[in-house]
Amino acid sequence: MYRTHFVRDITPDLDNQEVGLAGWVLNVRDLGGKKFILLRDKTGIGQVVLSKDSPSFGLANELTQESVISVKGRVKADKRAPKGVEIHASEVILISKAKTPLPLDVTGKVKADIDTRLRERLLDLRREEMQAVIKIQSTAVRAFREALYKKGFYEIFTPKLIATGTEGGAQLFTVIYFGKEAFLAQSPQLYKELMAGAVERVFEIAPAWRAEESDTPYHLSEFVSMDVEMAFSSYKDVMETLEEIIKNMITKVREECGDELKILNYELPEIKLPLRRITYIEALEILKNKGLNIKFGDDIGTPELRVINEEIKEDLYFITDWPTLSRPFYTKARDDNKDLSESFDLIFRFLEIVSGSTRNYRREVLESALKARGLNPSSFEFFLRWFDYGMPPHAGFGMGLSRVMLMLTGLQNVKEIVPFPRDKKRLVP
Amino acid sequence: MYRTHFVRDITPDLDNQEVGLAGWVLNVRDLGGKKFILLRDKTGIGQVVLSKDSPSFGLANELTQESVISVKGRVKADKRAPKGVEIHASEVILISKAKTPLPLDVTGKVKADIDTRLRERLLDLRREEMQAVIKIQSTAVRAFREALYKKGFYEIFTPKLIATGTEGGAQLFTVIYFGKEAFLAQSPQLYKELMAGAVERVFEIAPAWRAEESDTPYHLSEFVSMDVEMAFSSYKDVMETLEEIIKNMITKVREECGDELKILNYELPEIKLPLRRITYIEALEILKNKGLNIKFGDDIGTPELRVINEEIKEDLYFITDWPTLSRPFYTKARDDNKDLSESFDLIFRFLEIVSGSTRNYRREVLESALKARGLNPSSFEFFLRWFDYGMPPHAGFGMGLSRVMLMLTGLQNVKEIVPFPRDKKRLVP
Repeated sequence: MYRTHFVRDITPDLDNQEVGLAGWVLNVRDLGGKKFILLRDKTGIGQVVLSKDSPSFGLANELTQESVISVKGRVKADKRAPKGVEIHASEVILISKAKTPLPLDVTGKVKADIDTRLRERLLDLRREEMQAVIKIQSTAVRAFREALYKKGFYEIFTPKLIATGTEGGAQLFTVIYFGKEAFLAQSPQLYKELMAGAVERVFEIAPAWRAEESDTPYHLSEFVSMDVEMAFSSYKDVMETLEEIIKNMITKVREECGDELKILNYELPEIKLPLRRITYIEALEILKNKGLNIKFGDDIGTPELRVINEEIKEDLYFITDWPTLSRPFYTKARDDNKDLSESFDLIFRFLEIVSGSTRNYRREVLESALKARGLNPSSFEFFLRWFDYGMPPHAGFGMGLSRVMLMLTGLQNVKEIVPFPRDKKRLVP
Repeated sequence: MYRTHFVRDITPDLDNQEVGLAGWVLNVRDLGGKKFILLRDKTGIGQVVLSKDSPSFGLANELTQESVISVKGRVKADKRAPKGVEIHASEVILISKAKTPLPLDVTGKVKADIDTRLRERLLDLRREEMQAVIKIQSTAVRAFREALYKKGFYEIFTPKLIATGTEGGAQLFTVIYFGKEAFLAQSPQLYKELMAGAVERVFEIAPAWRAEESDTPYHLSEFVSMDVEMAFSSYKDVMETLEEIIKNMITKVREECGDELKILNYELPEIKLPLRRITYIEALEILKNKGLNIKFGDDIGTPELRVINEEIKEDLYFITDWPTLSRPFYTKARDDNKDLSESFDLIFRFLEIVSGSTRNYRREVLESALKARGLNPSSFEFFLRWFDYGMPPHAGFGMGLSRVMLMLTGLQNVKEIVPFPRDKKRLVP
């Protein structure tokens, strides 16, 4: 109906053949009785030539930037043309005319700030940088899943409407559910644990929500969480699985998105497995040597991670064995030192991109862990009761997709990654 | 740590080798100085033998059903054992003891009603039928994606918190969003259209919500929607793409889940492409011949689809060209007859599993379509304004994952498919 070829497929080999194309007008130039149209589709940019004797010649004046057209024509190899080839059009149809002026420059020559870009997002998503981001993300998510299929994991879908907050009541969005109060899940944590108690190895890629008050380049109210849970495993097993996943994501993006990385002018980190592991205690030592005194139990924030990153000079590294009370109630303490936990964060330079742990699997331990955090075990009875019926030891992690995408694209703000981000001031578009 | 082998991998070939296993106790029998433990893991059921001289012999009395154990032992080929092999245990460790009695029979011999099964869901998910359902679903979702990757589609993630209902205000759940009112998306419809206006071919698998008041075997308040949107395409192109997807899902489940289909005692439908297509008008004719008079413009419900299914005797068929006003505002009318639309439903016997159409891509047509349905175009301005900036013709569909799973498993109720279903009376577990 609209086309027989994509722009990418128009090569000098097709010289003299009839083709059909469709896409967006990037630019029209008038050169002495000929009109040169640059046509963009998802595969690239091609040159269309309209000469005076074409019945569509008059139409060329109406072809505003970003108008949608279809083109019939003959391929001509021509060394002067971009990519050595152009289409001599016999017919151009204007399918959808774009208003002028455009509120955002799609070529990206005129830079716009992030607020403008998000307001005019459809046009922003047509910029080649954003097209590259979308392809890289699709490739990376596929590579994440492929690494897990190979190891016998099943994909699952857990409920997003829940009756109790996963990690206490903070930062939850309330939903009015048939006249009652419900919440949007902050993570699939408790449900993925139950699923691992039934089918052992599971993963899920799904939205999750936190009522983030703060406006940082790394937080959104709605985000895509990539979750893994493994029965009969500890945090060390999980770190090894995670290393293979990360390696597969980087490898596949490098193999399949070479052009896109060039557009973004970005080189992926080179990684060697196993990744460097330092403990929380060692991290505090490094900081102390740099004159930064962090109290045991306190978080290690982005400013401190920048200092650690300068010292250990690794793109990706683990910080393990965090203080037990700094982690959620489901995190298992070490057997030899209850103040430390079997837990880890994976850090990209100075940004936490994954958080994981061995989980508690004894009911009485879970109950004390809830109480130690000021939470009421009876609110979690829907979860705790299953631990009476044979829950295996298990471990897992949660990965933030848009943070991983910062590592895979070189962009600096998760709001650039997510097509329609949600934060305190953004619910539209 | 816990095991070196899965039950599936213990075959007579391993005769005399030392192995480690872990899993759930299905059953312990005492046979004259020997205890026979049936051990279940995600790969199957194996037989473990504990003899009097093992230091773990006394422990066998504590091994309640569904307790989690790990086992070290030596493989013995033995024709009398199930699958010709058993493990002679040197050590059994009780990792997690299950309470007795269990509130649900995990062997499935004692049948339970759906309410009991959903209340005791963790145990229910350990029944071999549910393990089969979970594997089939993971396989089917993978096959859906693989069919689309091959055709150059990108996976996307659109926002679930929205400011305006997709198809009007009905059936929406309200979210309290930083003191303001927001809604949970009924479908990714408008956002996937915008994404197709940027990168042409997109799909998404994500939760969606409808405040369903009714309690049927085919509706839930929270469901997984599998969505496709294609630029420069019509509903006919989309039906062809959908046929290939469905075929790939059935083929992959048949190839990879043979044992699981046997457990469910189910034979997948045999399909031949192209699938039968009948128009809405033809469907009304069939019903009229059977004495059922449906007025033009009315829906064709499950009772009527049963009658049509008896007549045309196809497992899968399309009903196309529905009355324009019976479809949502974004559905394109036929050029030759504005009362009919370029739309389709894919029916499995008597159940709609997919709904799709060519979409409107002209702003003025969208505005009239909204008004014709009593909706206010100004509420949709965040969507309509993009049609000023070069929206291509496009088409797509939405597929309900759990309904497709009825086709792939032979089960009769979507509440059986979804591990933790959400409906008017269920928010827990």
